Amino acid sequence: MTGAVPGDDVVVALDAMGGDHAPREPVAGAIAAARTGVRVLLVGDEALMGPELDRAGGPPPGLEVVHAPERIRSEEDGARAVRAKPDASLVMSCRLVAEGRAHAAMSSGHTGAMMAAATLHMRRVPGVLRPGLAVVLPSMAGPMVLLDAGANAECRPEHLAQFALMGRLLAEDVLGIPAPSVGVLSIGEEAGKGTELVQQAYALLEGTPGFVGNVEGRDIPMGTARVVVTDGFTGNVALKLYEGAGAMIFNKVRTTLTSSVRGRMGGLIARPALRSLKRFADPEEYGGAYLLGVRGLAVIGHGNFGERGIANALSLAARGVREGLIGQVEAGLRGAA
Amino acid sequence: MTGAVPGDDVVVALDAMGGDHAPREPVAGAIAAARTGVRVLLVGDEALMGPELDRAGGPPPGLEVVHAPERIRSEEDGARAVRAKPDASLVMSCRLVAEGRAHAAMSSGHTGAMMAAATLHMRRVPGVLRPGLAVVLPSMAGPMVLLDAGANAECRPEHLAQFALMGRLLAEDVLGIPAPSVGVLSIGEEAGKGTELVQQAYALLEGTPGFVGNVEGRDIPMGTARVVVTDGFTGNVALKLYEGAGAMIFNKVRTTLTSSVRGRMGGLIARPALRSLKRFADPEEYGGAYLLGVRGLAVIGHGNFGERGIANALSLAARGVREGLIGQVEAGLRGAA
Repeated sequence: MTGAVPGDDVVVALDAMGGDHAPREPVAGAIAAARTGVRVLLVGDEALMGPELDRAGGPPPGLEVVHAPERIRSEEDGARAVRAKPDASLVMSCRLVAEGRAHAAMSSGHTGAMMAAATLHMRRVPGVLRPGLAVVLPSMAGPMVLLDAGANAECRPEHLAQFALMGRLLAEDVLGIPAPSVGVLSIGEEAGKGTELVQQAYALLEGTPGFVGNVEGRDIPMGTARVVVTDGFTGNVALKLYEGAGAMIFNKVRTTLTSSVRGRMGGLIARPALRSLKRFADPEEYGGAYLLGVRGLAVIGHGNFGERGIANALSLAARGVREGLIGQVEAGLRGAA
Repeated sequence: MTGAVPGDDVVVALDAMGGDHAPREPVAGAIAAARTGVRVLLVGDEALMGPELDRAGGPPPGLEVVHAPERIRSEEDGARAVRAKPDASLVMSCRLVAEGRAHAAMSSGHTGAMMAAATLHMRRVPGVLRPGLAVVLPSMAGPMVLLDAGANAECRPEHLAQFALMGRLLAEDVLGIPAPSVGVLSIGEEAGKGTELVQQAYALLEGTPGFVGNVEGRDIPMGTARVVVTDGFTGNVALKLYEGAGAMIFNKVRTTLTSSVRGRMGGLIARPALRSLKRFADPEEYGGAYLLGVRGLAVIGHGNFGERGIANALSLAARGVREGLIGQVEAGLRGAA
């Protein structure tokens, strides 16, 4: 951690102006998280957040408002906006971590801006070549970690090797998966398959803890490896395809059931099944993506996250802090160097 | 087409020894396709195919047996096996096209071997830099074409530009999609997003028929573009992830419905919905992948294709021949040169 945070509690700075439903859903998610014991700094425009807080009967204990006069919008260039608007809510959230007033920052706003702001203000963990975006996804075996999900479109083999180390720590310490398996995403299981990048990453990873070799696209939903590393281009395509397929098939199921199961009773029968399925395929359930490799936890949610997604993201950020994820990454990189 | 085929009918050479259920399912699929008017050369071990044919009351009209004494197994190295076993059923199927005895070849056996055999015996269409594997997938908008789905792990921008041209012809002429939209798979919609490869392919494709720019992973299930081009690494990861997600979610739906919809009546209600959903997410419905860019149509099915998948693949191969797909690709490349 950078700096000292008073007290034992975990403090997460939330960019309340990021995402499609800001500030309403971030405020609601912050209140929900505060009630579970996470201390939240709600960073955003006081004039806009005030009415939302009033509606909830004022801020609950553990929630503190930090006024930010500016915001970064989704259509802006991320890196440029971070430099041009030092007092934007997203940038201030990261700076609060750098200043030691918060342990982690969370935004469901501009992904590129959040990566730029986190790297700029929190700085890299010594030895980290590239911070990576690690996303938690559902699989048949339970939650799994895919990284890099889009921070670095082009990668070198040693980046993938570091992603494996950081992803394994996230899976073990934050998700509670004992001795997680690690695979390199490729187009065949044998060591010689795939691009140059994959083959060299395979060679670097051989013999490291949990390494199971190459995995294929289908191994992500199957959960064959609980940590899958890839370059940010392939990872981002995979993430968005997986989410899109989930949404499409869910819609198809709903349409199919609605048309084949008629009337009131049909609805009663289908509803619990649909609810359980939606929960399973819902990104809000998993709390977003982690930018790993900076000295402080940065969590990035979907733009369409509602109260539940934001509360889950805040909880996961807090859990990462409590489990000392950043310290483990620092120690792991010292050990690997 | 290479050589002349007597008569007006379309002849497809089927590798009856390829896939997990050979020769039983290929024989059954060939019989089903022959009954719809496709002439099939059933290439494989007579001693093994005979009992399957006898069980169906002998070969129907339009089905002819061609004995092949050898077969290529899935664990062999594809290119090496093609050279070592010139009389393997898969290799003979491609050679029958080269000799003018068939218009198209189909196998649900070894993908790499089929690509090697097709390229070796059918030869490339003049001007084609790299044959590409085009797979037909379900989307919200109807069937869509993704290529390259794995023939070339590393690609150059001009390969992607040719894939776009060939994929568009497949979508239009074989799938019957009028003026299909074409996108480059990337990690952002703007022209500057993605890898060097994507940015240069975008520049080459700008202004070509149907080009809609970059698309993202979620656009595959959404069907935003009906033809999506990418390198064979990303395409193969995407294909297998999409299939895996479909299978996983289908299983999840079945489990959820079975546990929430109790008893006999519940089963009666859920069954039609499940059947319709399975059909939608089923690769057998779409008939496999096309190797585009060789002088003759080569269709590659899943290893686990059953009768229906193989019959659909044979029909689609025949349709490609009837619509003159290869001639269109040749003409298109002359026009583009």
